[in-house]
Amino acid sequence: MAVSPSAARVAVLSFAFLLLNLHPISPATVGSDPDASPVKRLPARPGSPFKIALFADLHFGEDAWTDWGPRQDVNSVCVMSTVLDDEVPDFVVYLGDVITANNIMIANASLYWDQALSPTRSRGIPFASVFGNHDDAAFEWPLEWFSAPGIPPVHCAVANSSFSGDCSFSGTHRLQLMTNEIEQYALSYSSKGPKDLWPSISNYVLQISPMDNPLSPIAYLYFLDSGGGSYSEVLSNAQSEWFKTRSLEINPDSRVPELIFWHIPSKAYKKVAPWSGVPKPCVGSINKETVASQQAETGIMEILEKRPSVKVIMPRICLSIDTLMIIWQAVFVGHNHGLDWCCPSKNLWLCYARHTGYGGYGDWARGARIIEINQHPFSIKSWIRMENHDVHSEVNLSS
Amino acid sequence: MAVSPSAARVAVLSFAFLLLNLHPISPATVGSDPDASPVKRLPARPGSPFKIALFADLHFGEDAWTDWGPRQDVNSVCVMSTVLDDEVPDFVVYLGDVITANNIMIANASLYWDQALSPTRSRGIPFASVFGNHDDAAFEWPLEWFSAPGIPPVHCAVANSSFSGDCSFSGTHRLQLMTNEIEQYALSYSSKGPKDLWPSISNYVLQISPMDNPLSPIAYLYFLDSGGGSYSEVLSNAQSEWFKTRSLEINPDSRVPELIFWHIPSKAYKKVAPWSGVPKPCVGSINKETVASQQAETGIMEILEKRPSVKVIMPRICLSIDTLMIIWQAVFVGHNHGLDWCCPSKNLWLCYARHTGYGGYGDWARGARIIEINQHPFSIKSWIRMENHDVHSEVNLSS
Repeated sequence: MAVSPSAARVAVLSFAFLLLNLHPISPATVGSDPDASPVKRLPARPGSPFKIALFADLHFGEDAWTDWGPRQDVNSVCVMSTVLDDEVPDFVVYLGDVITANNIMIANASLYWDQALSPTRSRGIPFASVFGNHDDAAFEWPLEWFSAPGIPPVHCAVANSSFSGDCSFSGTHRLQLMTNEIEQYALSYSSKGPKDLWPSISNYVLQISPMDNPLSPIAYLYFLDSGGGSYSEVLSNAQSEWFKTRSLEINPDSRVPELIFWHIPSKAYKKVAPWSGVPKPCVGSINKETVASQQAETGIMEILEKRPSVKVIMPRICLSIDTLMIIWQAVFVGHNHGLDWCCPSKNLWLCYARHTGYGGYGDWARGARIIEINQHPFSIKSWIRMENHDVHSEVNLSS
Repeated sequence: MAVSPSAARVAVLSFAFLLLNLHPISPATVGSDPDASPVKRLPARPGSPFKIALFADLHFGEDAWTDWGPRQDVNSVCVMSTVLDDEVPDFVVYLGDVITANNIMIANASLYWDQALSPTRSRGIPFASVFGNHDDAAFEWPLEWFSAPGIPPVHCAVANSSFSGDCSFSGTHRLQLMTNEIEQYALSYSSKGPKDLWPSISNYVLQISPMDNPLSPIAYLYFLDSGGGSYSEVLSNAQSEWFKTRSLEINPDSRVPELIFWHIPSKAYKKVAPWSGVPKPCVGSINKETVASQQAETGIMEILEKRPSVKVIMPRICLSIDTLMIIWQAVFVGHNHGLDWCCPSKNLWLCYARHTGYGGYGDWARGARIIEINQHPFSIKSWIRMENHDVHSEVNLSS
């Protein structure tokens, strides 16, 4: 793949990230909870939009015992590389199902996780990740391996040599995957989240701030672990309460826009899903399957819907009054490979990402949702960048 | 519970077991495969019947976070103790689902496995085990724990202290459970089975021989791992081939009766299952649910059905000709708690054990299937011993 033409710019940006985060905001700056970890800052270049690429459902590590699997992973790297070179984003979000752990028969699934991160890492772009339902699933033995001529001995032999003599593969746990990512890569902005939310792990918040004015946040990015794999597909009551407390603490009047990322859609997605096609006010290009939502919901949607959603715009040319502007929060999910729409729901935009990986079900063309935050004039726009360089489904999430 | 009145007899028997197995049969004695492990011998007292008790579906470790769970385990110990004291068996078979691993949120599920073995061990009775589908399953987080008021912190705290900081419990693998059992208890006659059959583990054979004539086997006991939990519910083609080779090797003309133990019934059980009640030629007392059979079958039933099934009886009083007797092989399974019948199928008896544990679904009265092998005159009989001391459903498997 071609090397990014903006390598120099990325290098400067990466250096700025490091500088900013050497002096993290003290907890007092972002809230009163003494146990709360400081909110990590993502630096935005002054006067430039802040661009985020969402890589959803990459599903690395499928069918490692055939040519098909590794070939799909190479294809997925190509998709990501194309998107990164076309868009040159400031940040990448890995939106769950990074790997298909139920296909991985080695003890350390992080090896596949690392492959999925590689196009972003190699370009020096910071990133964060949330977990999907496939990321820490246990290995599922293909039923046909037990039929004649029996289990290919090579499988157990490989297993045998790498996993304490056993042929069971119970998945690399979320905590282990996340620890590996964080400890290995300085570009990772992920977090293990508060311990009292475990077994859900990827619960944390990031703050986008101008490089030259770090105490004036442009947006908050919330990451939540919607479960699945080693436990239920659910956003727990404890997670909802954590979001409520944390957001009230760091963004009490909701003046700073909030973008929220998790993997499995909540039931609210079912309510707004178009019957056929993607008619207005929804925006998107494919609506090819039913919303597969979480097993249970414990209040996160009610909390989001009750958040005030007003932003005071301070015009650059001094006017007699400030301008009040409605800011819609936006939720971004993956999970359904055949859906890529954004639909409004009350004060929220409910958006799907776009299936990025060649792993996982579905043959719809691969791409990635892009989110662009502009400061002056303020706007949050989104569109989908395809593997063939096309762009479509642009939507203004702040209008 | 009352101590067995036959403690002295059991002690003598245990000593005899140790003596016999200090000098295991060489592989050459039981077959020509140089890689095959020697068949362990179970000593039968001269002139006495050899009695086996089957403990099926004990399901230890359920609901450890409520009173209910531990109370069921105490009840299960009582059932086993009653059966052991009433019947004083020579041998006990743990017929799978010894534990409910999907309820166990500690790293070492062997602690519950050991509890299940304790009534047998404390009486000095030798035993063997096969795996059921619940024995190495991953912990399943109860969905309600994620709803208000959130996950009880104590659960993650307990988890945290015992399992490297993680709240995921992926089950104690079959190999680990079996290794723990074998290494810890000299009374265990279990085996890890040939490596090329892994991930199925409990595949092995035992030989019952008279104490005073160890080279004249009375019966072979085959144990097969019917899967489930960490992999498919299946008896693999490799296991079927192993059985075929091994049985031809050690019992080529099938003159020695064979009893076969695994957990999940094969589809043949569906074919012979009575529609209603337990009419002849079946024998049993409950027929309360549908047979839940293995996901796939790969030939074991065909192999069993093709085995010759003739025994030459050498009468004690010399007659002019030997007596030919049809010996039916018998298969014993658990899994269905609401079934306890034996039904004939071609040259086989297909038998259910009896739900022994208070863990697991169903409120049918608990008990255990007993198998008694008599040498002179030869017979294999079976009946069910209940927790309230009743005996019913006696069947002659050699008639």
